Amino acid sequence: MSLFSRIVIVGVGMMGGSIGLAARNRNLADGIIGIDSNSEHLEIAQHRGAIDYATNRFEEGLCCLGYSAADSARISVERPRPELVIVATPVCTVADYVREIAETFQHCGEERNVLITDIGSTKATICGQTDGCRFIGSHPIAGSERIGPAYSDENLFKNRLTVISPSSSIREVDIGLLVRFWQKLGSNVVCLPPEEHDSRLARTSHLPHLLSALLAENLQNQDVPFTGSGFLSTTRLASGGPDIWRDIVSTNQEAILEAIRQFETGLTNLRDKIRSSDWDGVAALLESAKEKRDRLEPA
Amino acid sequence: MSLFSRIVIVGVGMMGGSIGLAARNRNLADGIIGIDSNSEHLEIAQHRGAIDYATNRFEEGLCCLGYSAADSARISVERPRPELVIVATPVCTVADYVREIAETFQHCGEERNVLITDIGSTKATICGQTDGCRFIGSHPIAGSERIGPAYSDENLFKNRLTVISPSSSIREVDIGLLVRFWQKLGSNVVCLPPEEHDSRLARTSHLPHLLSALLAENLQNQDVPFTGSGFLSTTRLASGGPDIWRDIVSTNQEAILEAIRQFETGLTNLRDKIRSSDWDGVAALLESAKEKRDRLEPA
Repeated sequence: MSLFSRIVIVGVGMMGGSIGLAARNRNLADGIIGIDSNSEHLEIAQHRGAIDYATNRFEEGLCCLGYSAADSARISVERPRPELVIVATPVCTVADYVREIAETFQHCGEERNVLITDIGSTKATICGQTDGCRFIGSHPIAGSERIGPAYSDENLFKNRLTVISPSSSIREVDIGLLVRFWQKLGSNVVCLPPEEHDSRLARTSHLPHLLSALLAENLQNQDVPFTGSGFLSTTRLASGGPDIWRDIVSTNQEAILEAIRQFETGLTNLRDKIRSSDWDGVAALLESAKEKRDRLEPA
Repeated sequence: MSLFSRIVIVGVGMMGGSIGLAARNRNLADGIIGIDSNSEHLEIAQHRGAIDYATNRFEEGLCCLGYSAADSARISVERPRPELVIVATPVCTVADYVREIAETFQHCGEERNVLITDIGSTKATICGQTDGCRFIGSHPIAGSERIGPAYSDENLFKNRLTVISPSSSIREVDIGLLVRFWQKLGSNVVCLPPEEHDSRLARTSHLPHLLSALLAENLQNQDVPFTGSGFLSTTRLASGGPDIWRDIVSTNQEAILEAIRQFETGLTNLRDKIRSSDWDGVAALLESAKEKRDRLEPA
Protein backbone atom coordinates (compact mmCIF):
# COMPACT_ATOMS: atom_id res chain seq x y z
CA MET A 1 0.00 0.00 0.00
CA SER A 2 1.32 3.46 -0.82
CA LEU A 3 2.58 5.72 1.97
CA PHE A 4 -0.15 8.33 1.45
CA SER A 5 -3.64 8.24 0.01
CA ARG A 6 -3.01 11.55 -1.71
CA ILE A 7 -0.17 13.98 -2.15
CA VAL A 8 -1.10 17.57 -2.91
CA ILE A 9 1.66 19.77 -4.32
CA VAL A 10 1.01 23.49 -4.00
CA GLY A 11 3.27 25.15 -6.58
CA VAL A 12 4.41 22.86 -9.39
CA GLY A 13 7.69 24.57 -10.36
CA MET A 14 10.99 22.78 -10.85
CA MET A 15 11.03 21.54 -7.26
CA GLY A 16 7.32 20.72 -6.90
CA GLY A 17 7.41 18.93 -10.24
CA SER A 18 10.47 16.92 -9.20
CA ILE A 19 8.69 15.79 -6.03
CA GLY A 20 5.68 14.77 -8.11
CA LEU A 21 7.76 12.79 -10.60
CA ALA A 22 9.76 11.08 -7.84
CA ALA A 23 6.70 10.29 -5.70
CA ARG A 24 4.76 8.93 -8.65
CA ASN A 25 7.56 6.71 -9.90
CA ARG A 26 7.99 5.30 -6.41
CA ASN A 27 4.23 4.85 -5.88
CA LEU A 28 4.14 6.96 -2.73
CA ALA A 29 0.49 7.97 -3.21
CA ASP A 30 -2.66 6.75 -4.96
CA GLY A 31 -2.94 10.15 -6.60
CA ILE A 32 -0.97 13.37 -6.89
CA ILE A 33 -2.77 16.69 -7.17
CA GLY A 34 -1.02 19.82 -8.41
CA ILE A 35 -2.26 23.31 -7.52
CA ASP A 36 -0.76 26.33 -9.23
CA SER A 37 -1.94 29.70 -10.57
CA ASN A 38 0.38 29.23 -13.56
CA SER A 39 -1.63 27.14 -16.02
CA GLU A 40 1.38 26.56 -18.29
CA HIS A 41 3.28 25.02 -15.39
CA LEU A 42 0.29 22.84 -14.57
CA GLU A 43 0.08 21.61 -18.14
CA ILE A 44 3.79 20.81 -18.35
CA ALA A 45 3.75 19.04 -14.98
CA GLN A 46 0.72 16.96 -15.97
CA HIS A 47 2.18 16.21 -19.39
CA ARG A 48 5.43 15.02 -17.80
CA GLY A 49 3.52 12.83 -15.36
CA ALA A 50 4.44 14.77 -12.23
CA ILE A 51 0.77 15.18 -11.24
CA ASP A 52 -2.42 13.24 -11.97
CA TYR A 53 -4.82 16.08 -11.49
CA ALA A 54 -4.22 19.79 -12.09
CA THR A 55 -6.17 22.76 -10.81
CA ASN A 56 -5.68 26.46 -10.21
CA ARG A 57 -8.42 26.43 -7.56
CA PHE A 58 -7.03 26.00 -4.11
CA GLU A 59 -10.09 24.55 -2.38
CA GLU A 60 -10.82 22.22 -5.26
CA GLY A 61 -7.35 20.74 -5.10
CA LEU A 62 -7.30 20.38 -1.35
CA CYS A 63 -10.84 19.09 -0.81
CA CYS A 64 -11.13 16.78 -3.82
CA LEU A 65 -14.00 18.83 -5.24
CA GLY A 66 -14.65 18.61 -8.95
CA TYR A 67 -13.02 15.23 -9.49
CA SER A 68 -14.48 13.04 -12.18
CA ALA A 69 -15.87 9.71 -11.05
CA ALA A 70 -12.79 8.02 -12.50
CA ASP A 71 -10.51 10.39 -10.61
CA SER A 72 -12.41 9.82 -7.40
CA ALA A 73 -12.15 6.09 -7.71
CA ARG A 74 -8.43 6.26 -8.38
CA ILE A 75 -7.61 8.96 -5.86
CA SER A 76 -9.44 7.48 -2.92
CA VAL A 77 -9.42 9.38 0.32
CA GLU A 78 -9.60 6.52 2.74
CA ARG A 79 -9.50 7.48 6.36
CA PRO A 80 -7.41 7.06 8.39
CA ARG A 81 -4.75 6.83 5.66
CA PRO A 82 -2.77 10.03 5.76
CA GLU A 83 -2.54 12.68 3.09
CA LEU A 84 0.49 14.88 2.53
CA VAL A 85 0.34 18.49 1.37
CA ILE A 86 3.65 19.93 0.19
CA VAL A 87 3.88 23.69 -0.13
CA ALA A 88 6.51 24.25 -2.82
CA THR A 89 6.06 27.99 -3.22
CA PRO A 90 8.50 30.87 -2.60
CA VAL A 91 9.68 31.01 1.00
CA CYS A 92 7.81 34.23 1.88
CA THR A 93 4.44 32.74 0.93
CA VAL A 94 4.82 29.37 2.68
CA ALA A 95 3.52 30.27 6.15
CA ASP A 96 0.37 31.91 4.75
CA TYR A 97 -0.33 28.88 2.58
CA VAL A 98 0.22 26.48 5.47
CA ARG A 99 -2.28 28.36 7.67
CA GLU A 100 -4.78 28.61 4.79
CA ILE A 101 -4.47 24.89 4.08
CA ALA A 102 -5.01 24.01 7.74
CA GLU A 103 -8.12 26.21 7.81
CA THR A 104 -9.46 24.90 4.50
CA PHE A 105 -9.38 21.32 5.74
CA GLN A 106 -11.27 22.33 8.85
CA HIS A 107 -14.01 23.65 6.51
CA CYS A 108 -14.07 20.67 4.16
CA GLY A 109 -16.75 19.08 6.27
CA GLU A 110 -14.94 15.82 6.81
CA GLU A 111 -12.30 14.88 9.31
CA ARG A 112 -9.14 14.31 7.32
CA ASN A 113 -5.71 13.00 8.22
CA VAL A 114 -3.48 15.65 6.69
CA LEU A 115 0.18 16.37 7.33
CA ILE A 116 1.64 19.56 5.82
CA THR A 117 5.25 20.23 4.87
CA ASP A 118 7.21 22.59 2.64
CA ILE A 119 10.56 22.73 0.86
CA GLY A 120 11.63 26.25 1.82
CA SER A 121 15.33 27.09 1.97
CA THR A 122 14.92 28.88 5.31
CA LYS A 123 13.10 27.43 8.26
CA ALA A 124 13.01 29.72 11.34
CA THR A 125 10.62 32.32 9.88
CA ILE A 126 8.25 29.72 8.46
CA CYS A 127 8.22 27.52 11.57
CA GLY A 128 7.68 30.58 13.77
CA GLN A 129 4.58 31.58 11.78
CA THR A 130 2.89 28.16 11.60
CA ASP A 131 2.51 27.37 15.29
CA GLY A 132 -0.47 25.14 15.98
CA CYS A 133 -0.63 23.70 12.46
CA ARG A 134 0.12 20.03 11.80
CA PHE A 135 3.16 21.23 9.88
CA ILE A 136 6.78 20.07 9.74
CA GLY A 137 9.25 22.19 7.82
CA SER A 138 11.39 20.36 5.25
CA HIS A 139 14.36 21.50 3.23
CA PRO A 140 15.72 19.12 0.63
CA ILE A 141 19.23 20.39 -0.15
CA ALA A 142 18.95 19.82 -3.85
CA GLY A 143 17.95 21.94 -6.76
CA SER A 144 19.19 23.84 -9.73
CA GLU A 145 19.09 27.40 -10.95
CA ARG A 146 16.51 26.34 -13.58
CA ILE A 147 12.95 27.50 -13.21
CA GLY A 148 9.74 25.62 -14.04
CA PRO A 149 8.53 21.99 -14.19
CA ALA A 150 10.16 21.46 -17.60
CA TYR A 151 13.40 21.11 -15.59
CA SER A 152 11.96 18.75 -12.99
CA ASP A 153 14.04 15.65 -12.29
CA GLU A 154 12.75 12.55 -10.53
CA ASN A 155 16.26 11.82 -9.19
CA LEU A 156 16.79 15.31 -7.80
CA PHE A 157 16.65 14.11 -4.17
CA LYS A 158 18.66 10.92 -4.58
CA ASN A 159 21.61 10.79 -2.16
CA ARG A 160 20.98 14.39 -1.15
CA LEU A 161 20.38 15.61 2.38
CA THR A 162 16.94 16.71 3.51
CA VAL A 163 16.65 18.63 6.77
CA ILE A 164 13.36 18.53 8.65
CA SER A 165 12.59 20.90 11.50
CA PRO A 166 9.65 19.62 13.61
CA SER A 167 8.33 21.82 16.40
CA SER A 168 7.95 20.32 19.87
CA SER A 169 4.19 19.93 19.46
CA ILE A 170 4.46 17.54 16.51
CA ARG A 171 3.77 13.85 17.14
CA GLU A 172 6.53 11.31 16.60
CA VAL A 173 4.35 9.35 14.15
CA ASP A 174 4.14 12.38 11.86
CA ILE A 175 7.88 12.96 12.04
CA GLY A 176 8.43 9.30 11.16
CA LEU A 177 6.02 9.55 8.23
CA LEU A 178 7.82 12.57 6.79
CA VAL A 179 11.24 10.97 7.33
CA ARG A 180 10.04 7.92 5.39
CA PHE A 181 8.68 10.13 2.60
CA TRP A 182 12.02 11.86 1.97
CA GLN A 183 13.94 8.62 2.40
CA LYS A 184 11.77 6.99 -0.24
CA LEU A 185 12.65 9.87 -2.61
CA GLY A 186 16.28 8.85 -2.05
CA SER A 187 17.25 11.47 0.54
CA ASN A 188 19.24 11.16 3.71
CA VAL A 189 17.22 12.87 6.43
CA VAL A 190 18.38 14.79 9.49
CA CYS A 191 16.34 16.71 12.08
CA LEU A 192 17.62 20.14 13.09
CA PRO A 193 16.17 23.10 14.99
CA PRO A 194 15.16 25.81 12.48
CA GLU A 195 17.75 28.34 13.68
CA GLU A 196 20.59 25.87 13.38
CA HIS A 197 19.43 24.91 9.89
CA ASP A 198 19.35 28.56 8.89
CA SER A 199 22.82 29.46 10.09
CA ARG A 200 24.38 26.41 8.45
CA LEU A 201 22.61 27.10 5.17
CA ALA A 202 23.61 30.77 5.31
CA ARG A 203 27.23 29.60 5.13
CA THR A 204 26.88 26.71 2.67
CA SER A 205 24.21 28.07 0.31
CA HIS A 206 23.02 31.63 0.81
CA LEU A 207 26.45 33.29 1.03
CA PRO A 208 27.78 31.36 -2.02
CA HIS A 209 24.69 32.50 -3.92
CA LEU A 210 25.24 36.14 -3.05
CA LEU A 211 28.96 36.02 -3.89
CA SER A 212 28.14 34.36 -7.19
CA ALA A 213 25.59 37.09 -7.97
CA LEU A 214 28.04 39.86 -7.03
CA LEU A 215 30.71 38.42 -9.31
CA ALA A 216 28.25 38.26 -12.20
CA GLU A 217 26.91 41.73 -11.45
CA ASN A 218 30.42 43.24 -11.41
CA LEU A 219 31.20 41.86 -14.88
CA GLN A 220 31.79 44.65 -17.37
CA ASN A 221 30.78 44.24 -21.00
CA GLN A 222 34.36 44.65 -22.21
CA ASP A 223 35.46 41.75 -19.99
CA VAL A 224 32.86 39.28 -21.28
CA PRO A 225 35.17 37.69 -23.91
CA PHE A 226 37.74 37.00 -21.18
CA THR A 227 35.47 34.82 -19.05
CA GLY A 228 36.32 31.13 -19.05
CA SER A 229 34.87 27.97 -17.57
CA GLY A 230 36.04 29.06 -14.11
CA PHE A 231 33.98 32.24 -14.22
CA LEU A 232 31.00 30.25 -15.48
CA SER A 233 31.06 27.73 -12.64
CA THR A 234 31.73 30.35 -9.98
CA THR A 235 28.75 32.40 -11.17
CA ARG A 236 26.40 29.52 -12.06
CA LEU A 237 24.18 30.24 -9.05
CA ALA A 238 23.59 33.81 -10.23
CA SER A 239 21.12 32.40 -12.78
CA GLY A 240 18.75 31.46 -9.96
CA GLY A 241 15.35 33.14 -9.68
CA PRO A 242 15.78 36.62 -8.16
CA ASP A 243 12.39 36.48 -6.41
CA ILE A 244 13.12 33.12 -4.82
CA TRP A 245 16.43 34.42 -3.54
CA ARG A 246 15.07 37.75 -2.38
CA ASP A 247 12.73 35.76 -0.15
CA ILE A 248 15.50 33.51 1.13
CA VAL A 249 17.65 36.49 2.03
CA SER A 250 14.80 38.39 3.67
CA THR A 251 13.82 35.40 5.83
CA ASN A 252 17.39 34.67 6.93
CA GLN A 253 18.71 38.18 7.44
CA GLU A 254 20.75 37.76 10.64
CA ALA A 255 22.44 34.47 9.76
CA ILE A 256 23.36 35.79 6.30
CA LEU A 257 24.78 39.02 7.75
CA GLU A 258 26.89 36.91 10.11
CA ALA A 259 28.12 34.72 7.22
CA ILE A 260 29.03 37.85 5.23
CA ARG A 261 30.90 39.24 8.25
CA GLN A 262 32.96 36.05 8.52
CA PHE A 263 33.69 36.07 4.79
CA GLU A 264 34.73 39.73 4.86
CA THR A 265 37.22 38.94 7.63
CA GLY A 266 38.72 36.17 5.49
CA LEU A 267 38.86 38.43 2.44
CA THR A 268 40.58 41.18 4.42
CA ASN A 269 43.18 38.70 5.68
CA LEU A 270 43.82 37.43 2.17
CA ARG A 271 44.08 40.97 0.79
CA ASP A 272 46.63 41.82 3.50
CA LYS A 273 48.69 38.74 2.57
CA ILE A 274 48.68 39.78 -1.10
CA ARG A 275 49.46 43.41 -0.29
CA SER A 276 52.45 42.43 1.85
CA SER A 277 53.66 39.91 -0.79
CA ASP A 278 53.25 37.05 1.69
CA TRP A 279 53.18 34.42 -1.07
CA ASP A 280 53.80 31.54 1.33
CA GLY A 281 50.74 32.68 3.28
CA VAL A 282 48.68 32.83 0.08
CA ALA A 283 49.90 29.35 -0.95
CA ALA A 284 49.06 27.92 2.49
CA LEU A 285 45.52 29.24 2.23
CA LEU A 286 45.11 27.86 -1.30
CA GLU A 287 46.53 24.49 -0.18
CA SER A 288 44.13 24.23 2.74
CA ALA A 289 41.18 25.31 0.55
CA LYS A 290 42.06 22.69 -2.05
CA GLU A 291 42.26 19.97 0.59
CA LYS A 292 38.81 20.88 1.94
CA ARG A 293 37.28 21.13 -1.53
CA ASP A 294 38.79 17.85 -2.75
CA ARG A 295 37.25 16.06 0.23
CA LEU A 296 33.76 17.17 -0.86
CA GLU A 297 34.02 15.56 -4.28
CA PRO A 298 36.75 12.93 -4.35
CA ALA A 299 38.28 12.39 -7.80
CA MET B 1 53.15 21.20 -45.19
CA SER B 2 52.83 21.55 -41.46
CA LEU B 3 53.02 25.01 -39.83
CA PHE B 4 56.22 24.19 -37.93
CA SER B 5 59.07 21.77 -38.45
CA ARG B 6 59.08 21.02 -34.72
CA ILE B 7 57.12 21.99 -31.67
CA VAL B 8 58.92 21.73 -28.33
CA ILE B 9 56.72 21.72 -25.24
CA VAL B 10 58.53 22.58 -22.03
CA GLY B 11 56.34 21.22 -19.21
CA VAL B 12 53.94 18.48 -20.28
CA GLY B 13 51.23 18.93 -17.65
CA MET B 14 47.50 19.13 -18.37
CA MET B 15 47.93 22.24 -20.54
CA GLY B 16 51.18 21.25 -22.27
CA GLY B 17 49.75 17.81 -22.97
CA SER B 18 46.56 19.34 -24.41
CA ILE B 19 48.61 21.49 -26.77
CA GLY B 20 50.55 18.41 -27.84
CA LEU B 21 47.43 16.36 -28.49
CA ALA B 22 45.74 19.17 -30.38
CA ALA B 23 48.81 20.07 -32.45
CA ARG B 24 49.48 16.44 -33.33
CA ASN B 25 45.92 15.70 -34.38
CA ARG B 26 45.92 18.79 -36.57
CA ASN B 27 49.38 18.03 -38.04
CA LEU B 28 50.85 21.36 -37.01
CA ALA B 29 54.42 19.99 -36.81
CA ASP B 30 56.51 17.16 -38.18
CA GLY B 31 57.44 16.23 -34.63
CA ILE B 32 56.55 17.23 -31.09
CA ILE B 33 59.18 17.09 -28.35
CA GLY B 34 58.22 17.12 -24.66
CA ILE B 35 60.68 18.26 -21.98
CA ASP B 36 59.80 17.76 -18.33
CA SER B 37 61.61 16.85 -15.11
CA ASN B 38 58.61 14.68 -14.14
CA SER B 39 59.24 11.34 -15.87
CA GLU B 40 55.73 10.05 -15.05
CA HIS B 41 54.21 13.03 -16.85
CA LEU B 42 56.50 12.41 -19.82
CA GLU B 43 55.45 8.77 -19.99
CA ILE B 44 51.73 9.56 -19.80
CA ALA B 45 52.04 12.31 -22.40
CA GLN B 46 53.94 10.06 -24.78
CA HIS B 47 51.56 7.16 -24.17
CA ARG B 48 48.60 9.40 -24.95
CA GLY B 49 50.24 10.62 -28.15
CA ALA B 50 50.73 14.22 -26.99
CA ILE B 51 54.46 14.09 -27.76
CA ASP B 52 56.64 12.03 -30.12
CA TYR B 53 59.84 12.31 -28.19
CA ALA B 54 60.29 12.70 -24.42
CA THR B 55 63.30 13.89 -22.49
CA ASN B 56 64.14 15.36 -19.11
CA ARG B 57 67.27 16.97 -20.54
CA PHE B 58 66.69 20.53 -21.59
CA GLU B 59 69.47 20.89 -24.14
CA GLU B 60 68.74 17.51 -25.67
CA GLY B 61 65.13 18.43 -26.27
CA LEU B 62 65.86 21.86 -27.65
CA CYS B 63 68.85 21.02 -29.84
CA CYS B 64 67.67 17.68 -31.21
CA LEU B 65 70.61 15.93 -29.58
CA GLY B 66 70.29 12.22 -28.91
CA TYR B 67 67.62 11.54 -31.51
CA SER B 68 67.69 8.17 -33.17
CA ALA B 69 68.20 8.14 -36.94
CA ALA B 70 64.49 7.38 -37.35
CA ASP B 71 63.55 10.29 -35.12
CA SER B 72 65.86 12.61 -36.97
CA ALA B 73 64.38 11.64 -40.30
CA ARG B 74 60.87 12.17 -39.05
CA ILE B 75 61.55 15.29 -37.05
CA SER B 76 63.46 17.16 -39.68
CA VAL B 77 64.79 20.55 -38.81
CA GLU B 78 64.65 22.14 -42.21
CA ARG B 79 65.72 25.70 -42.35
CA PRO B 80 64.16 28.15 -42.81
CA ARG B 81 60.98 26.39 -41.63
CA PRO B 82 60.17 27.75 -38.20
CA GLU B 83 60.15 25.86 -34.92
CA LEU B 84 57.91 26.73 -31.99
CA VAL B 85 58.89 26.34 -28.36
CA ILE B 86 56.01 26.55 -25.90
CA VAL B 87 56.88 27.10 -22.25
CA ALA B 88 53.99 25.52 -20.33
CA THR B 89 55.47 25.77 -16.85
CA PRO B 90 54.27 27.70 -13.78
CA VAL B 91 54.08 31.44 -14.39
CA CYS B 92 57.00 32.30 -12.08
CA THR B 93 59.41 30.09 -14.01
CA VAL B 94 58.44 31.15 -17.56
CA ALA B 95 60.74 34.16 -18.01
CA ASP B 96 63.81 32.22 -16.83
CA TYR B 97 63.00 29.37 -19.21
CA VAL B 98 62.46 31.74 -22.13
CA ARG B 99 65.84 33.39 -21.60
CA GLU B 100 67.52 30.02 -21.14
CA ILE B 101 65.92 28.69 -24.33
CA ALA B 102 67.04 31.74 -26.31
CA GLU B 103 70.58 31.29 -25.03
CA THR B 104 70.62 27.54 -25.63
CA PHE B 105 69.73 28.01 -29.27
CA GLN B 106 72.55 30.51 -29.65
CA HIS B 107 74.90 27.80 -28.41
CA CYS B 108 73.49 24.98 -30.54
CA GLY B 109 76.01 25.81 -33.21
CA GLU B 110 73.45 26.21 -35.97
CA GLU B 111 71.31 29.14 -36.93
CA ARG B 112 67.75 28.12 -36.19
CA ASN B 113 64.40 29.73 -36.85
CA VAL B 114 62.78 29.52 -33.41
CA LEU B 115 59.79 31.39 -32.05
CA ILE B 116 59.10 31.09 -28.31
CA THR B 117 55.75 31.46 -26.57
CA ASP B 118 54.13 30.47 -23.27
CA ILE B 119 50.67 29.88 -21.84
CA GLY B 120 51.00 31.82 -18.56
CA SER B 121 47.89 33.30 -16.94
CA THR B 122 49.63 36.63 -16.35
CA LYS B 123 51.57 38.52 -18.97
CA ALA B 124 53.10 41.81 -17.73
CA THR B 125 55.75 40.25 -15.46
CA ILE B 126 56.79 37.66 -18.06
CA CYS B 127 56.87 40.09 -20.98
CA GLY B 128 58.84 42.59 -18.89
CA GLN B 129 61.52 39.98 -18.14
CA THR B 130 61.99 38.60 -21.67
CA ASP B 131 62.95 41.74 -23.54
CA GLY B 132 65.18 41.01 -26.51
CA CYS B 133 64.04 37.39 -26.89
CA ARG B 134 62.05 36.26 -29.93
CA PHE B 135 59.16 35.67 -27.54
CA ILE B 136 55.44 36.43 -27.74
CA GLY B 137 53.36 35.83 -24.62
CA SER B 138 50.22 33.72 -25.10
CA HIS B 139 47.35 33.01 -22.73
CA PRO B 140 44.75 30.52 -23.90
CA ILE B 141 41.73 31.16 -21.65
CA ALA B 142 40.94 27.50 -21.21
CA GLY B 143 41.80 24.92 -18.63
CA SER B 144 40.55 22.95 -15.74
CA GLU B 145 41.46 22.51 -12.10
CA ARG B 146 42.87 19.04 -12.97
CA ILE B 147 46.60 18.53 -12.84
CA GLY B 148 48.77 16.37 -15.13
CA PRO B 149 48.72 15.13 -18.75
CA ALA B 150 46.24 12.36 -17.90
CA TYR B 151 43.64 15.15 -18.02
CA SER B 152 44.84 16.63 -21.29
CA ASP B 153 42.15 17.30 -23.86
CA GLU B 154 42.78 17.89 -27.55
CA ASN B 155 39.67 20.07 -27.76
CA LEU B 156 40.57 22.25 -24.79
CA PHE B 157 41.19 25.33 -26.95
CA LYS B 158 38.26 24.92 -29.34
CA ASN B 159 36.10 28.05 -29.44
CA ARG B 160 38.02 29.54 -26.54
CA LEU B 161 39.79 32.87 -26.54
CA THR B 162 43.58 33.09 -26.66
CA VAL B 163 45.22 36.41 -25.87
CA ILE B 164 48.65 37.12 -27.30
CA SER B 165 50.79 40.02 -26.08
CA PRO B 166 53.59 40.81 -28.55
CA SER B 167 56.15 43.45 -27.61
CA SER B 168 56.87 46.25 -30.08
CA SER B 169 60.13 44.63 -31.24
CA ILE B 170 58.41 41.49 -32.54
CA ARG B 171 58.04 41.10 -36.32
CA GLU B 172 54.57 40.93 -37.86
CA VAL B 173 55.42 37.60 -39.51
CA ASP B 174 56.00 36.02 -36.09
CA ILE B 175 52.77 37.46 -34.72
CA GLY B 176 50.93 36.06 -37.73
CA LEU B 177 52.51 32.65 -37.24
CA LEU B 178 51.45 32.48 -33.61
CA VAL B 179 47.94 33.71 -34.43
CA ARG B 180 47.65 30.93 -37.00
CA PHE B 181 48.91 28.35 -34.48
CA TRP B 182 46.24 29.16 -31.90
CA GLN B 183 43.57 29.49 -34.57
CA LYS B 184 44.43 26.03 -35.85
CA LEU B 185 43.95 24.70 -32.31
CA GLY B 186 40.43 26.13 -32.54
CA SER B 187 40.94 29.36 -30.60
CA ASN B 188 39.78 32.86 -31.33
CA VAL B 189 42.81 35.09 -30.96
CA VAL B 190 43.08 38.71 -29.77
CA CYS B 191 46.17 40.87 -29.25
CA LEU B 192 46.29 42.90 -26.03
CA PRO B 193 49.01 44.81 -24.19
CA PRO B 194 50.18 42.72 -21.18
CA GLU B 195 48.88 45.17 -18.56
CA GLU B 196 45.40 45.26 -20.08
CA HIS B 197 45.34 41.46 -20.26
CA ASP B 198 46.31 41.25 -16.60
CA SER B 199 43.69 43.64 -15.27
CA ARG B 200 40.92 41.95 -17.26
CA LEU B 201 41.98 38.51 -16.11
CA ALA B 202 42.24 39.70 -12.51
CA ARG B 203 38.50 40.41 -12.67
CA THR B 204 37.33 37.43 -14.73
CA SER B 205 39.65 34.70 -13.45
CA HIS B 206 41.99 35.52 -10.55
CA LEU B 207 39.39 37.11 -8.27
CA PRO B 208 36.84 34.31 -8.87
CA HIS B 209 39.58 31.82 -8.02
CA LEU B 210 40.42 33.55 -4.75
CA LEU B 211 36.75 33.88 -3.73
CA SER B 212 36.20 30.23 -4.52
CA ALA B 213 39.21 29.27 -2.38
CA LEU B 214 38.05 31.47 0.51
CA LEU B 215 34.59 29.88 0.47
CA ALA B 216 36.12 26.40 0.54
CA GLU B 217 38.62 27.39 3.24
CA ASN B 218 35.85 28.82 5.45
CA LEU B 219 33.87 25.57 5.34
CA GLN B 220 33.60 24.03 8.80
CA ASN B 221 33.54 20.25 9.20
CA GLN B 222 30.08 20.33 10.78
CA ASP B 223 28.70 22.13 7.73
CA VAL B 224 30.00 19.63 5.17
CA PRO B 225 26.76 17.59 4.99
CA PHE B 226 24.84 20.78 4.20
CA THR B 227 26.75 21.59 1.04
CA GLY B 228 24.82 21.10 -2.19
CA SER B 229 25.53 21.39 -5.90
CA GLY B 230 25.63 25.18 -5.58
CA PHE B 231 28.49 25.08 -3.09
CA LEU B 232 30.30 22.59 -5.30
CA SER B 233 30.14 24.72 -8.43
CA THR B 234 30.97 27.95 -6.60
CA THR B 235 34.07 26.32 -5.06
CA ARG B 236 35.13 24.18 -8.05
CA LEU B 237 38.12 26.43 -8.78
CA ALA B 238 39.49 25.87 -5.27
CA SER B 239 40.71 22.46 -6.44
CA GLY B 240 43.26 24.15 -8.70
CA GLY B 241 46.97 23.69 -8.01
CA PRO B 242 48.05 25.95 -5.13
CA ASP B 243 51.54 26.50 -6.57
CA ILE B 244 50.19 27.51 -9.96
CA TRP B 245 47.86 29.99 -8.32
CA ARG B 246 50.41 31.32 -5.88
CA ASP B 247 52.49 32.27 -8.93
CA ILE B 248 49.54 33.84 -10.72
CA VAL B 249 48.73 35.96 -7.69
CA SER B 250 52.34 36.98 -7.09
CA THR B 251 52.81 38.08 -10.71
CA ASN B 252 49.57 40.06 -10.83
CA GLN B 253 49.56 41.66 -7.40
CA GLU B 254 48.33 45.17 -8.22
CA ALA B 255 45.54 44.21 -10.61
CA ILE B 256 44.28 41.56 -8.18
CA LEU B 257 44.32 44.01 -5.26
CA GLU B 258 42.28 46.41 -7.40
CA ALA B 259 39.79 43.66 -8.30
CA ILE B 260 39.45 42.74 -4.61
CA ARG B 261 38.87 46.41 -3.72
CA GLN B 262 36.06 46.64 -6.27
CA PHE B 263 34.50 43.43 -5.02
CA GLU B 264 34.69 44.55 -1.39
CA THR B 265 32.84 47.73 -2.31
CA GLY B 266 30.07 45.66 -3.92
CA LEU B 267 29.93 43.33 -0.92
CA THR B 268 29.67 46.27 1.48
CA ASN B 269 26.80 47.74 -0.56
CA LEU B 270 24.98 44.42 -0.59
CA ARG B 271 25.51 43.95 3.16
CA ASP B 272 24.08 47.43 3.78
CA LYS B 273 21.00 46.57 1.69
CA ILE B 274 20.46 43.39 3.69
CA ARG B 275 21.06 45.10 7.03
CA SER B 276 18.52 47.82 6.21
CA SER B 277 15.99 45.25 4.92
CA ASP B 278 16.08 46.83 1.45
CA TRP B 279 14.66 43.72 -0.21
CA ASP B 280 13.77 45.55 -3.43
CA GLY B 281 17.40 46.64 -3.66
CA VAL B 282 18.56 43.05 -3.10
CA ALA B 283 16.12 41.77 -5.74
CA ALA B 284 17.28 44.41 -8.25
CA LEU B 285 20.89 43.33 -7.79
CA LEU B 286 19.99 39.65 -8.18
CA GLU B 287 17.91 40.44 -11.28
CA SER B 288 20.73 42.34 -12.93
CA ALA B 289 23.25 39.62 -12.00
CA LYS B 290 21.00 36.95 -13.50
CA GLU B 291 20.61 38.91 -16.71
CA LYS B 292 24.38 39.28 -17.08
CA ARG B 293 25.04 35.63 -16.23
CA ASP B 294 22.34 34.30 -18.57
CA ARG B 295 23.91 36.23 -21.45
CA LEU B 296 27.20 34.35 -20.95
CA GLU B 297 25.64 30.95 -21.41
CA PRO B 298 22.29 31.19 -23.18
CA ALA B 299 19.88 28.34 -22.35
